[in-house]
Amino acid sequence: MITGEFDLIRRIRDLVSRRQPAPAGAIGMGDDCAVYRIAEGRYGLFSADMSIEGTHFDLSYCTPRDAGYRSMAANISDIYAMNGRGLMAFVSAGIPETMSGDDVIDLYDGMIDCAEKHGVFIAGGDTVLSDRLILSISIYGETANPVMRSGAMPGDFIYLTGSTGGSMLGLELFQAGTGGQACAESRAKHLRPEPFAGVDKLVAEYSPTAMIDISDGLSADLERICEESGCGYELHAASIPVPGEVERFCAANSRDTLRYALNSGEEYQLLFTSKLKTDKGSAFLIGKIIPDGKFIIINNNRRPAETAGFDHFRSRLKNRQAGL
Amino acid sequence: MITGEFDLIRRIRDLVSRRQPAPAGAIGMGDDCAVYRIAEGRYGLFSADMSIEGTHFDLSYCTPRDAGYRSMAANISDIYAMNGRGLMAFVSAGIPETMSGDDVIDLYDGMIDCAEKHGVFIAGGDTVLSDRLILSISIYGETANPVMRSGAMPGDFIYLTGSTGGSMLGLELFQAGTGGQACAESRAKHLRPEPFAGVDKLVAEYSPTAMIDISDGLSADLERICEESGCGYELHAASIPVPGEVERFCAANSRDTLRYALNSGEEYQLLFTSKLKTDKGSAFLIGKIIPDGKFIIINNNRRPAETAGFDHFRSRLKNRQAGL
Repeated sequence: MITGEFDLIRRIRDLVSRRQPAPAGAIGMGDDCAVYRIAEGRYGLFSADMSIEGTHFDLSYCTPRDAGYRSMAANISDIYAMNGRGLMAFVSAGIPETMSGDDVIDLYDGMIDCAEKHGVFIAGGDTVLSDRLILSISIYGETANPVMRSGAMPGDFIYLTGSTGGSMLGLELFQAGTGGQACAESRAKHLRPEPFAGVDKLVAEYSPTAMIDISDGLSADLERICEESGCGYELHAASIPVPGEVERFCAANSRDTLRYALNSGEEYQLLFTSKLKTDKGSAFLIGKIIPDGKFIIINNNRRPAETAGFDHFRSRLKNRQAGL
Repeated sequence: MITGEFDLIRRIRDLVSRRQPAPAGAIGMGDDCAVYRIAEGRYGLFSADMSIEGTHFDLSYCTPRDAGYRSMAANISDIYAMNGRGLMAFVSAGIPETMSGDDVIDLYDGMIDCAEKHGVFIAGGDTVLSDRLILSISIYGETANPVMRSGAMPGDFIYLTGSTGGSMLGLELFQAGTGGQACAESRAKHLRPEPFAGVDKLVAEYSPTAMIDISDGLSADLERICEESGCGYELHAASIPVPGEVERFCAANSRDTLRYALNSGEEYQLLFTSKLKTDKGSAFLIGKIIPDGKFIIINNNRRPAETAGFDHFRSRLKNRQAGL
């Protein structure tokens, strides 16, 4: 019996790094992508992501086309998170015998809908029969200037490219079986998350020192930056942008907006740090990197992050691991 | 209900090529790998392969370490089949909660055993929980000179790098539950197939016009070369090398050796065509490319391939598709 996935992933990582130390040319591990130096100023980026029906998506409220879209989005976002452009995707699909041919075509149409929008080409893959739907996508992209998770320094400012919280609200409503049209925007956000395509402008504007996409929630992903960079953070709760719909829902149902803001996963906004301090740029200034500790400022009170809305549920049954 | 996997794969291919015509730089599709032109004389090779417990391997006779080894072997072989060297592999694994941590480590050890032997580095991946073991590996390699499936011409000679048949015999014995040490070599061949590492020498020696690895059986893979090249073949049954153990087993049990030779999958010998005619080289000359038709010469009788040992069972529950 697996005694806790974290332990297991650590054991796998230890094994791989002990038996296979990083070769020349592979410069980044444990990031959104593996980074491979192709030539001076040119880097290949690789990421892989597996989604399984029942764990990562639920076909009772998610159409096959949505399932395809969101699986592709996760991969494309990993490339943006390194300041790259996705080029090619490889789709291995385990397809249940009970799925209709039309549903399978819808699934691929969903993947292509997302890939096409972001300039990514489905270049190959594998198709096998399976008892449930499995989508295992790997993606290749390139960049002239990879931005890692590990470059944040105390004093850097923390920015977020857009609002967060909607995907988690959408997921909760679907899981509760709440029908009707309420919170349509949050539901759509959960079904069809959109990778943040404006990374070129962002890098020109902010010269990020570290970057990650919000795939597991703002808290969890900010912790990853801090872990890789060896530092802490201070977030300003009031500065974290949350969609109006989530705010209205929380106000009407006595829910804590901050919990959604901190824990909503699969949002795919980019979270980054920069030496530049501005509230005039295209991203939202939400906090600061500090030498140590994790704090959230709520109404001028500085609280340890653990007591301020962070939860280990992390909104998703997810144990993904980019870069072993 | 899926009405036949072949139809479905064709529908998926049609959809992808209609919606996403090949971009500049992607030169090869429908081959062992997708080929991407990095620079003049430098090509990236990508392949992806998914194996599912119960369909592609059976943990009742295959250890986790074997399962890891053979999954990695399939991917590495795809790169060799294009005249490439594998560089990096990305492993997405769906792991059952009931699997012990030690078994998971054995699984990764098996993948690394094979990767290490062939100079491939596990650079990333994803780990998720699943009801059964799923291994979805993608691999990246490079070559200066990709050899495609499509370059065979009438008059070319057909070569095979080594004997074939053992993997199918091993699989049959395992599936029949035949215990003991009989046919140990064939069993080992099935559990730990070895990619053919001598492609450099081969290319220098033969300048292959088309090449593929035997992953689905000599017949099926030769048909792929002919399909992509628009030609036919003539095989000499007596020239196809078969392991002594398979010959002895067939003689003792009144089985048709040719059926094993033609249909054994996951052998990973390379099958290639060349303008050069020689029986002095390191590969076995087994036939000739002809303009049209598929024939096998048995005891000086030329028979249509369909009646001469080819079976659609193809020895494997496999519907893999390299390059959508």
